[in-house]
Amino acid sequence: MERIVDRLTEIKKQGLYRDLKYLSAPQGPHTVIDGREVLLMASNSYLGLCNDERLKAAAIKALQEYGVGSGGSRLTTGSYRLHQELEQALACFKGTEAALVFNTGYMANIGAIAGLADKSWVIFSDELNHASIIDGCKLSGAKIVIYKHCDMEDLYQKVKEFQGCPSLIVTDGVFSMDGDIAPLDDIVRIAQQFDALTMVDDAHASGILGPNGGGTGELFGLKDKIDMQMGTLSKALASEGGYVAGKQCLIDYLRNRARSFIFTTALAPATVAVALAALEIVEQEPEPRKVLLENAQWLCTRLKEAGFKILENKTPIIPIIIGEAEKALQFSQALLEEGIYIPAIRPPTVPPGTSRLRLTLMATHTREDLNYALAKIIQVARELTIIKP
Amino acid sequence: MERIVDRLTEIKKQGLYRDLKYLSAPQGPHTVIDGREVLLMASNSYLGLCNDERLKAAAIKALQEYGVGSGGSRLTTGSYRLHQELEQALACFKGTEAALVFNTGYMANIGAIAGLADKSWVIFSDELNHASIIDGCKLSGAKIVIYKHCDMEDLYQKVKEFQGCPSLIVTDGVFSMDGDIAPLDDIVRIAQQFDALTMVDDAHASGILGPNGGGTGELFGLKDKIDMQMGTLSKALASEGGYVAGKQCLIDYLRNRARSFIFTTALAPATVAVALAALEIVEQEPEPRKVLLENAQWLCTRLKEAGFKILENKTPIIPIIIGEAEKALQFSQALLEEGIYIPAIRPPTVPPGTSRLRLTLMATHTREDLNYALAKIIQVARELTIIKP
Repeated sequence: MERIVDRLTEIKKQGLYRDLKYLSAPQGPHTVIDGREVLLMASNSYLGLCNDERLKAAAIKALQEYGVGSGGSRLTTGSYRLHQELEQALACFKGTEAALVFNTGYMANIGAIAGLADKSWVIFSDELNHASIIDGCKLSGAKIVIYKHCDMEDLYQKVKEFQGCPSLIVTDGVFSMDGDIAPLDDIVRIAQQFDALTMVDDAHASGILGPNGGGTGELFGLKDKIDMQMGTLSKALASEGGYVAGKQCLIDYLRNRARSFIFTTALAPATVAVALAALEIVEQEPEPRKVLLENAQWLCTRLKEAGFKILENKTPIIPIIIGEAEKALQFSQALLEEGIYIPAIRPPTVPPGTSRLRLTLMATHTREDLNYALAKIIQVARELTIIKP
Repeated sequence: MERIVDRLTEIKKQGLYRDLKYLSAPQGPHTVIDGREVLLMASNSYLGLCNDERLKAAAIKALQEYGVGSGGSRLTTGSYRLHQELEQALACFKGTEAALVFNTGYMANIGAIAGLADKSWVIFSDELNHASIIDGCKLSGAKIVIYKHCDMEDLYQKVKEFQGCPSLIVTDGVFSMDGDIAPLDDIVRIAQQFDALTMVDDAHASGILGPNGGGTGELFGLKDKIDMQMGTLSKALASEGGYVAGKQCLIDYLRNRARSFIFTTALAPATVAVALAALEIVEQEPEPRKVLLENAQWLCTRLKEAGFKILENKTPIIPIIIGEAEKALQFSQALLEEGIYIPAIRPPTVPPGTSRLRLTLMATHTREDLNYALAKIIQVARELTIIKP
């Protein structure tokens, strides 16, 4: 136990200690954190649906009809009609034959990757892929080959080197901490050339990108070319959970092989009902995602003009790169004192020296919210000499 | 993709293919599966709380107050006051300084084990530990030493062999598929002798065993001697999620290190509210767990008298060992035709040759339910020559 105390001290010394802030109001543009009213600019509830009355009504209906917990794993007593309906709706949404719902996006990634690949496989993984992909690769026992971030020449050379082995290329569709979009067209071309399977983690794209919100696969017109489209139910869809969509045989296989699917209690009926209702909203209402992307573009441009080091994207994720962990934390805390909450993202979530404020928008932010945030961010950054006065 | 089709064919040939059955009514002693009314004798909702009105009310209150999804990870925007209250209540329940809630029990195990141990560690793991413990050990990169099931002489020899290394002994408190209880007193003694940490997965014991339902730690009077008491929110507590309870420094450390905690959207407020309300019921109402254990004892004795090969336990898990996967499946299907649902548990969930029906009871089963089930189980087993006529 002394070993743990020592390590904690070390983490604190490096400015990497993580503590929690607590909300006491719903997740929305304006919420209450540690008792203070704040403008929230860091939520993954991109469509602003977490406090949507229709979703609350869907949850309440399911609670009244099916009760609270599911009571068992999906393979024993925990599969409800709602799970089946959701899986069918997700397959339809993603343009695939079938889908499988997991309890979290993290579990979808580790379950799918380690369920599919074993030590006879090679997995090619983007260096900035999400932690859950990294953990899935590790669990699979496969040979893991990391390629440079979105570097297709590097990917090509590496896939070529291992041709003949069963292989999988896996990438975030939208990278969670950088907000950029993977070059899926090139990835699919390389995969086809060398007979590799492809997997895209569309946690931050589903419900947001593509004409129908179908994610990066839809954005690139490649829905039927990606073998495993993974997504979450907890971001745009404002619930909990994750899923993998693909061919029927693949889904049947994962249902039999993915340990994180098999060995866990199923999502509660109400959780599933919320995701189903949110998916219906995504399919019927294109306007919120348009507004969201326009707002992100607008704010991004203004922040760049003000002198920030911004990664510019066509997504609602706007990373403001600071560098040192301590400085990023200081910036975040100063903003919180001004009533704006954007947590600092530090190693190990991002590489050392790239600590940042990860600003994200919700479709329910008003232009007034954005103007207010912009002014405050500039003011605080000048005070901290993050940008020039 | 042909590789996957081939493997699926192989799984089917071995009688190990897993398909889903869907409920269209709440999880309770009597439910509806694939359109048929059944007596459910396989739920992990041991206290029968999945359809409890108080829990539904708690969920609805939280939905109205906080909305649906949490919108972010615990470390960014997804921690609500309810998470804090639940963690404090769990620490109190488990008699520890602190607790950390994960999204599932699976994630609690992999997060805690891989967060604590690294390749410099040795982990001693019971051969029948849950899949999530096995995956956590694998993810940690530690040296994994499997000891024979509940064999304290074997454990002692193995721990002795590696003395001096940082080490962890990990065990199920109640083994999920066998229902037996780990000899925690001996495990703690060995751990103390060799300065190893201890972790107990009390998924199937929390809320059920011990005078206050505190689990195996409480049953053995060792609450303060076990370093990590893991439990779930999805079984007796009828919600979703898992947790680890232990010393404050350990919980602080896991909050900073457990990847399955850091890299996932937090549980929804309503999910947390259900667990909190269920925990209150567990603390205030000892009667249901008494009835549950008495009923299990009664049924176990009757089944043995009838000639079944039963693993006899002091838990609500009654495994009826059949042997071959096909035969277990046939037994389960024949029972379903008679209106009783007890799914067959086959490899890889249990070792080959030990396929079984895993019968579990809920506190809400009546003696009439048990009599009916007993008669039908005997009748069908005779027809299938599983027991002598």
